[in-house]
Amino acid sequence: MSGLVNFRGCCSVLVTGASRGLGLQIVRDLASGGSSPGKIIATTRNPATAQKLQELADKHNNIHIVPLDVVSQESIEKCVEEVGQLVQEEGLNCLINNAGINVVADFHSVTAEKMIENFHTNTVAPLMVTKAFLPLLKQAASRGKAAGSGSMSIQRAAVINITSLLGSVELNWGERANNFSWYPYRTSKSALNMVTRCLAVDLEADGILCMGIHPGWVRTDMGGSQAPLSPEESISSLLHVIGGLTEKDHGSFLNFTGEVLPW
Amino acid sequence: MSGLVNFRGCCSVLVTGASRGLGLQIVRDLASGGSSPGKIIATTRNPATAQKLQELADKHNNIHIVPLDVVSQESIEKCVEEVGQLVQEEGLNCLINNAGINVVADFHSVTAEKMIENFHTNTVAPLMVTKAFLPLLKQAASRGKAAGSGSMSIQRAAVINITSLLGSVELNWGERANNFSWYPYRTSKSALNMVTRCLAVDLEADGILCMGIHPGWVRTDMGGSQAPLSPEESISSLLHVIGGLTEKDHGSFLNFTGEVLPW
Repeated sequence: MSGLVNFRGCCSVLVTGASRGLGLQIVRDLASGGSSPGKIIATTRNPATAQKLQELADKHNNIHIVPLDVVSQESIEKCVEEVGQLVQEEGLNCLINNAGINVVADFHSVTAEKMIENFHTNTVAPLMVTKAFLPLLKQAASRGKAAGSGSMSIQRAAVINITSLLGSVELNWGERANNFSWYPYRTSKSALNMVTRCLAVDLEADGILCMGIHPGWVRTDMGGSQAPLSPEESISSLLHVIGGLTEKDHGSFLNFTGEVLPW
Repeated sequence: MSGLVNFRGCCSVLVTGASRGLGLQIVRDLASGGSSPGKIIATTRNPATAQKLQELADKHNNIHIVPLDVVSQESIEKCVEEVGQLVQEEGLNCLINNAGINVVADFHSVTAEKMIENFHTNTVAPLMVTKAFLPLLKQAASRGKAAGSGSMSIQRAAVINITSLLGSVELNWGERANNFSWYPYRTSKSALNMVTRCLAVDLEADGILCMGIHPGWVRTDMGGSQAPLSPEESISSLLHVIGGLTEKDHGSFLNFTGEVLPW
């Protein structure tokens, strides 16, 4: 079972935070599949230091590295301009808001500054990036419709927010809650889930699919070495799910394995 | 049916944002009931301009007005000091985090600054205020236990966060979603619901009840003149619900009428 076949017909995919961890793995999987998207736009704050991403781009000429600092409006606007020149009239099919941080703090160590820092990167940035890319997403959605695809999918136009199970208010209870008393991270992901839902309501008329997906607990710099999943396992499943999204998934919160998660 | 009888045995209640709207109504209802709490601590950013609150305090000598700017750590710490002197060894029984703002912005007008401003006041501030008042809440909870009340209630110790139905991710769909495309407000209240849940997990061992309650859509400066409820109707019901909270409501999200709301 490969998720990659589902990216056939997807002209362009943009992934934020692509220099390492899950973002890098998404780019690697998209590039190495037999039906790789026409353009994989991999953004990172500082391309000069993103060695692994550079090496990947040297091997696959459909990877385009573009600088993007998701918490800088100026950087977002520059990135949109550059991407616009890359994709031209085809627009952008799929925006994957993956960049995120974990400002670890429990009840005792949490401060207003830590809460706001995590909220800015994990919640506000995906919203501002999506706003800025809306013209390119709409362009792709219109072309998809003109080509006969009136339904929603990543092959037409989509915003995928990488969220977390830890953002589920419902599941933050009992045993699940005890080991992850991370106020800034949990709060930022709950808030991101609301942003995803708001976007789904507002972008539906444009035919742009919006949803949030939990990648699992993965052995990355953020997930740590105790995590049960490798980046390969997580992203192979996650891309399979994303590739098969339809209208019924619009506005949803899914696990990387495809099940619906509670808010 | 009066909610006020349930505040019998509640030595002290602190209400933030008490100069107008729902906060002022909470203070008014608490003060005018036959079984008014021993001390009603009404906080407001600028007591000098809080005329209605001053008038109320002139009539009821159990109302104590204390300055508090919930987004200033310095102000929070000063307030805790002042309240500590007021309540002495009795501690604080009930903290009602009511202060909140609505930074109105839809998809087109939303900015990073607006998102962060609303998040700071509505989400971060209740957390930082609760952290600062924890020693006084614990003191009240311990005294309650020593006096034979091992269960959770506002008569022992509680943190009540005034949240909103608009913070429900689940309910932000279909018809309900259309008229309230308020990104900063909705997001801040979803995030507040996560904070409430995190606090419930962390403060349970201290016997401090934590929950969030939706006051309904009320004719205040924030709710506007089209709202169906008067402040009197909302707060009468809300205080009745709060007054009767038990352990089963710990970590919950309730409507002002008492039903459980989806996250």
